[in-house]
Amino acid sequence: MRIVAAIGGSIIIKDYNYKKFQEYAEILGNLAKEHEIFVVVGGGRPARDYIQIVRDLDCGEAKCDDIGIEVTRINAKLLLLSLEDKAYQKVPHNFQEALEYSASGKIIVMGGTEPAHSTDAVSAILAEYVKADLLINLTSVDGMYNKDPNKYSDAELIEEITADEMLEVIKGKDVKAGTYEFFDMTAIQMIRRSALETIIVNGDNPENLVKAINGEKIGTKIVSK
Amino acid sequence: MRIVAAIGGSIIIKDYNYKKFQEYAEILGNLAKEHEIFVVVGGGRPARDYIQIVRDLDCGEAKCDDIGIEVTRINAKLLLLSLEDKAYQKVPHNFQEALEYSASGKIIVMGGTEPAHSTDAVSAILAEYVKADLLINLTSVDGMYNKDPNKYSDAELIEEITADEMLEVIKGKDVKAGTYEFFDMTAIQMIRRSALETIIVNGDNPENLVKAINGEKIGTKIVSK
Amino acid sequence: MRIVAAIGGSIIIKDYNYKKFQEYAEILGNLAKEHEIFVVVGGGRPARDYIQIVRDLDCGEAKCDDIGIEVTRINAKLLLLSLEDKAYQKVPHNFQEALEYSASGKIIVMGGTEPAHSTDAVSAILAEYVKADLLINLTSVDGMYNKDPNKYSDAELIEEITADEMLEVIKGKDVKAGTYEFFDMTAIQMIRRSALETIIVNGDNPENLVKAINGEKIGTKIVSK
Amino acid sequence: MRIVAAIGGSIIIKDYNYKKFQEYAEILGNLAKEHEIFVVVGGGRPARDYIQIVRDLDCGEAKCDDIGIEVTRINAKLLLLSLEDKAYQKVPHNFQEALEYSASGKIIVMGGTEPAHSTDAVSAILAEYVKADLLINLTSVDGMYNKDPNKYSDAELIEEITADEMLEVIKGKDVKAGTYEFFDMTAIQMIRRSALETIIVNGDNPENLVKAINGEKIGTKIVSK
Amino acid sequence: MRIVAAIGGSIIIKDYNYKKFQEYAEILGNLAKEHEIFVVVGGGRPARDYIQIVRDLDCGEAKCDDIGIEVTRINAKLLLLSLEDKAYQKVPHNFQEALEYSASGKIIVMGGTEPAHSTDAVSAILAEYVKADLLINLTSVDGMYNKDPNKYSDAELIEEITADEMLEVIKGKDVKAGTYEFFDMTAIQMIRRSALETIIVNGDNPENLVKAINGEKIGTKIVSK
Amino acid sequence: MRIVAAIGGSIIIKDYNYKKFQEYAEILGNLAKEHEIFVVVGGGRPARDYIQIVRDLDCGEAKCDDIGIEVTRINAKLLLLSLEDKAYQKVPHNFQEALEYSASGKIIVMGGTEPAHSTDAVSAILAEYVKADLLINLTSVDGMYNKDPNKYSDAELIEEITADEMLEVIKGKDVKAGTYEFFDMTAIQMIRRSALETIIVNGDNPENLVKAINGEKIGTKIVSK
Repeated sequence: MRIVAAIGGSIIIKDYNYKKFQEYAEILGNLAKEHEIFVVVGGGRPARDYIQIVRDLDCGEAKCDDIGIEVTRINAKLLLLSLEDKAYQKVPHNFQEALEYSASGKIIVMGGTEPAHSTDAVSAILAEYVKADLLINLTSVDGMYNKDPNKYSDAELIEEITADEMLEVIKGKDVKAGTYEFFDMTAIQMIRRSALETIIVNGDNPENLVKAINGEKIGTKIVSK
Repeated sequence: MRIVAAIGGSIIIKDYNYKKFQEYAEILGNLAKEHEIFVVVGGGRPARDYIQIVRDLDCGEAKCDDIGIEVTRINAKLLLLSLEDKAYQKVPHNFQEALEYSASGKIIVMGGTEPAHSTDAVSAILAEYVKADLLINLTSVDGMYNKDPNKYSDAELIEEITADEMLEVIKGKDVKAGTYEFFDMTAIQMIRRSALETIIVNGDNPENLVKAINGEKIGTKIVSK
Repeated sequence: MRIVAAIGGSIIIKDYNYKKFQEYAEILGNLAKEHEIFVVVGGGRPARDYIQIVRDLDCGEAKCDDIGIEVTRINAKLLLLSLEDKAYQKVPHNFQEALEYSASGKIIVMGGTEPAHSTDAVSAILAEYVKADLLINLTSVDGMYNKDPNKYSDAELIEEITADEMLEVIKGKDVKAGTYEFFDMTAIQMIRRSALETIIVNGDNPENLVKAINGEKIGTKIVSK
Repeated sequence: MRIVAAIGGSIIIKDYNYKKFQEYAEILGNLAKEHEIFVVVGGGRPARDYIQIVRDLDCGEAKCDDIGIEVTRINAKLLLLSLEDKAYQKVPHNFQEALEYSASGKIIVMGGTEPAHSTDAVSAILAEYVKADLLINLTSVDGMYNKDPNKYSDAELIEEITADEMLEVIKGKDVKAGTYEFFDMTAIQMIRRSALETIIVNGDNPENLVKAINGEKIGTKIVSK
Repeated sequence: MRIVAAIGGSIIIKDYNYKKFQEYAEILGNLAKEHEIFVVVGGGRPARDYIQIVRDLDCGEAKCDDIGIEVTRINAKLLLLSLEDKAYQKVPHNFQEALEYSASGKIIVMGGTEPAHSTDAVSAILAEYVKADLLINLTSVDGMYNKDPNKYSDAELIEEITADEMLEVIKGKDVKAGTYEFFDMTAIQMIRRSALETIIVNGDNPENLVKAINGEKIGTKIVSK
Repeated sequence: MRIVAAIGGSIIIKDYNYKKFQEYAEILGNLAKEHEIFVVVGGGRPARDYIQIVRDLDCGEAKCDDIGIEVTRINAKLLLLSLEDKAYQKVPHNFQEALEYSASGKIIVMGGTEPAHSTDAVSAILAEYVKADLLINLTSVDGMYNKDPNKYSDAELIEEITADEMLEVIKGKDVKAGTYEFFDMTAIQMIRRSALETIIVNGDNPENLVKAINGEKIGTKIVSK
C-alpha cells in the first residue's frame, strides 16, 4: 500500500524529547518493508513559539504561516535523521519534490509547503498527489468526537463520518496561522473530491499507526459516502 | 500603493490572441511608475484543454491542478515578455520567490503555485504575503451578482459585500481542478483573516484596473466588516 | 540497449487528445523492461499557438523558441504522468539533469532545452551525451523522401542515407522558431560527429518504435558512412 | 563602510521574545542608510534544544551542527521579517549567495553555512569574502577578559589583542556542535590571514553596534599586528 | 546601447596571466557607465587541456563540450572577480539566468551553456535573447580574411560580409569540441535570422572593443543584407 | 564498509594526464561492489594556476579559495566521467547534497565546499557527516614523517599517531588558499571530535587505497587515543 501519515507536531516533539522520533523511526522503518511511506510532520510547540514572535512583530498571518512551515521542516529533518538510510535524506518543499524523491524507493518525510493551509491539508493534498491508498492522521486525541471531550464527559468518539458531514462541522471556524482547527477546510475538500480513505487516530501511541494500517477498528474513519 | 492584480486566464489569453497581453502591458507599465505591482495570471482555455488530457488519463485531481499551474506560468511568462524591462523576467513559483524578486523594484508576474487552490487564492495569499494595500480581481463578469446574470435578467450587481457574507455564498460548492468557483474558499478565508481590501471588476476592459485603483465606483468591493 | 526516442509534438498531442500519450506510455513501459529509455517530446500545435503570440508581440526569435520550449516541457510532463512510476517524475531542463535523473533506473522524458535548436537537435545531443546505442525519430511522415511526398506522387522513401548526404540536403534552409526543418543542422552535425545510429520512422503508429528497435526495415536510417 | 555584524543567538532570541529583533531592525535599518550591512545570526537556545535531540538520537556531531544551522537560518529569517523592505528577503545559505543578494543594495542576513564551524567563523569568512572594512561580534559579554569574569572578580577586559595572541588562547579547546568557544579557530585564522579589523562588543545593548562603528572605545579589538 | 561582447579564451587567459582580466575589467567598467554590457568568455588553453583528458578517456564529444563549458565558467568568474561590484557576481548558466541577473543593472558575464555549440554561438543567441543592439566578437585575429592569413601573405581582411555569405564559407567544416571554427553554424544562423549587427575584432588589444562600439572602422562587420 | 577517500589534486591530475583518472576509476569501481564509496578530489596544479590569477588580481584569500574549489569540482567531474554509470553523475556542492545523492547507491565524488578549509578538511567533515567507517587520505608522500623527508634523509615514517598529537604538530602553521598544510586544523579537529579512523597513504599508487582498506600496514594511521 501507498500510505501518507500525518504526525502532529504536538505528538512528535513534546518538550524537545527525542523519544517519539526514535519510536516512530522504528515503526516507520518496519512498515516501509511492505509499504510505500510518506510522512508529513507538524510544527508543535517550537512552531507556536516562533510564530508568536512573528505575530508580535506584526508581520501578518502569511508570514506567521511561513515561519511555522520552516519549523515543521526542521522537525521533518529530525525524523529523517532518526530513520537514517531508510529515508531519503532531504525534506521536500513541495509535492512535486516529494514525488521525485520517492523514486529512491525510500521513506519520504516532509513538513509544510505554503501559507494558507495546515500540515493536515498538506497530508491530504500529498495523498491525492501520490495517489495514496490510505491517509492516516496521527493526532493528540483519539479521533473526532460529537462534542469537545475536554469539556463534556459524555462526548462520544465518532467511528465513521463522511467528508460531507465533516465539512459541515468545520465551516465557519476561524483560520489563524498555527491554530488551524482539527483538519482544515482544504484538507476535507481534498478528501472529498478524491474520496481519500482517511483515518484519524491518537498518535501518542505510535503503534496506532500500525493498527490503522492493519484495518483494526481504531479512531475515526472518514469515508467518501 | 502596493497592489496585487489577478487577471483571469479567460480574459488575457482569449483565442491565443496577443492583444490583451499588449494592452495589459501598457497599463501595468504605467501603473508601475507610481505603484508596486504584483500580477497573478490565470490559465484560461489552454489550461482547460491540457487539464482535460490529464483527467482523461485518470491521473487524479491534484495532477490536473499541476498541469493547470504549468499553463498559468506560461501565460505569466507571456505577460512578462510583453512588459519587457519593466518586469522581473522570471515567473516566481511560490510566494517567497515573489517577495525576493520584488527587491528588483520591477513588476512581478506569477501564475499558480500548488494544487488545491485557484489563482484567485494565489492572489489573495500573495496580497497577504507582501502586505498589499489593495487586491484587484479582473474577471470576465462585472462583479458579483445576487443571482446568476446569465440566467436571470433581473440579477443585480452587488456593490459591496463582507468577506463573511461571501464565505456563506461559496460554502458547499464543489471543487474541481480548473473549475474553481468565483473566488475559492481559501481566497475568501485569506481576505477575511487579513481584512484585505478587495475589488472584483470586469477585466475585459483593462482600463477598469486603473479605475479600481483610482477609487472609482466599479465592480464589487469586498470589505472586512 | 540505451535508446533515445524523439516524439514529434504533432504526433503526440494532436487536438489535445490523450490517446497517443496512453499508447506511447504502454509501449515505452514495455520497452523499459529491457532497455534504458530516454524520450524527447516536441511541441506540436500548442507550441505553435503560443509561439504565434510571442511573434505577434515582436519579442524576437529567441523568445519564440523559449515559449516553445516551455510547451514541450508540459507535453513531456503529460507523458510522465501517463508513465506513472515507470518514469522519473521530473522533466530535465538540460542534458546534465537527464543524466542525473537516469540514475533512478527509470524512463527519462524531456522537452526542449535552449533557444536555437529544435527538439530533434535535443534528441541528437542527448543521444551523444548519454552515449545511446540508438536514436529514433518519431515523426509525422514515413521517413525521408527524395522529393516532397505531399507534392510529388512519385516521391520515394530513402531507406538509408549518410549524415554527410543529409547535411547537404539541409544546408541553406531557413531557421525560424517552431518551424525547424526536418532535422535541423545541429541534429545532423551531432549525428555525424558521433556516428550515432539513427532511424526516422512514422510515429503515428507507436508500434513503429518497437519495430525500429527490433531492427525491422522501416523508415529512413542515417548511417555514419 | 562595508560591515559584517555577527549577532549571537543568545542575544537576539532570548526566551522567544520579539523585542531584540525589533531593536536590532531599527538600528540596522538606520546604519544601512550610510553603510553596506551584512548580518550573521546565531542559534541561541532553540538551536541548543534541537541539537540536544540530535545528540540524544546519536546522529553524530556533523548532524548536530546541521540542525543548529537550520535554526540559525530561522532566526535570520526573523530578523529579515523585522527589517522588511530594508533587507533582501532571503537567507543566503553560503557566501556566494550572500554576495549575489548584496547586488540588491539591501541588508543581507544569514545564519550558519556548513558543519564544522560556528556562526562566528561564518562571520569572519563572510567578512573576508565581501572584503568588509569592519567585523563586529555582538556577544553576551563585554569583550574578552584575561580571566573568566564569571569566576574571577578581578578579571579585566582586554582592550586590544592581536590575532596571533588570540590564537594562542584558543588552541587546544575542545570543539563540540553548539558549544564552540568564544570565537573558534577558523574565525581567528581568517581574521589573521586577512588582517580583518574586528571588534567584540556586548550585544545585549544594540546601541553598542553603533558605538563600535563610530570608533568609540568599547569591547575588545582584534588587531592584525 | 545594449552590447554583447564575446571574448575568446585564447585572448583573456593566455598563460594564466591576470593582466588581460584587469585590462578588460577596466574597459568594461567604463563602458558600463553608458551601456548595458553582457560578456561571454571562452575557454582557451585550460579548456583545451581539460578537454584532452576527457577525449583520452573516450567519453564522447558531448562530454568534451561539457568540461569545456565548465572551464569557460571559471574564466567568466575570474572576469567577475576583476569587475568587483560593477558586475553581478554570479555566472549565468543559461540565457534565462543572464536576463534575470541583468535586472540588477550590472555587467553580466557568462561562459558556455550547453554541448553542441561554441561560446561564439552562445554570444549570438544571447544577443538575440536580450535584443542587443550590437554583438562584438573579440578574437585573436584582426577579423575575417579572404584566405588564411597564416598561410597566405596576400590574404586580405574582409571589411564587411553578409550573414548569408559567411554561412557559405562555414558550411561543411567539421565540428569537434573545443575546435569550433571561427564562428560556428549556429552563431551565423542566429545572426542571420535576427539580423544582428556584428563586428569581429582583434581582442588582444582591449581598446578595440571601445573602437568597435564607437563605430570606428575596425575588424570585419557582418551585415544582414 | 562506508569509506571516504580523499585523493590529492597533485596525485590525480598530474600534467593533465588522463591515466590516473582511469586507474582510480577501475579501482574505485571494484571497491564499490563491496563498499559504499565517497571520494573527495583536490585541486592540484590547475587549481594553483587559477588561484595565482586571483591572488595577482588582489581579490583576497576567500576568493582564492573559491576559485580553487571550482577547479576541484572540475577534477571531481573528470573522475565521475571515468567512473561512468558506477558513479552518481553530479558533483555535490555540500555535504547535504553528498548524502542525498548517495541514496542512488552509487559512488559519490565531490571537490571542495567552501572557503576556509582544504579538501582534506572536506573529507573529514564528510566522513563525520555520513558516519564513515574509514577515512583514507591519498597524498603524494608515504604518510607523516617525524621530519621533512625532503630535507632529512633520516626522517622516519610515523606508523600511528593520535589526533591530539597531530593537532600539536599542525598548530601555528600559516593558512593560505591552496597551500594548506598536510591536513589542516579543521580536518584534525573533526577526526578528533568524532574519533574517525583515518589512514594517510601514498596515492601515487592507487593500489594503496585497496591495501589500506584491507587493513595492510601502510602509511600513517591516525587513532583517536
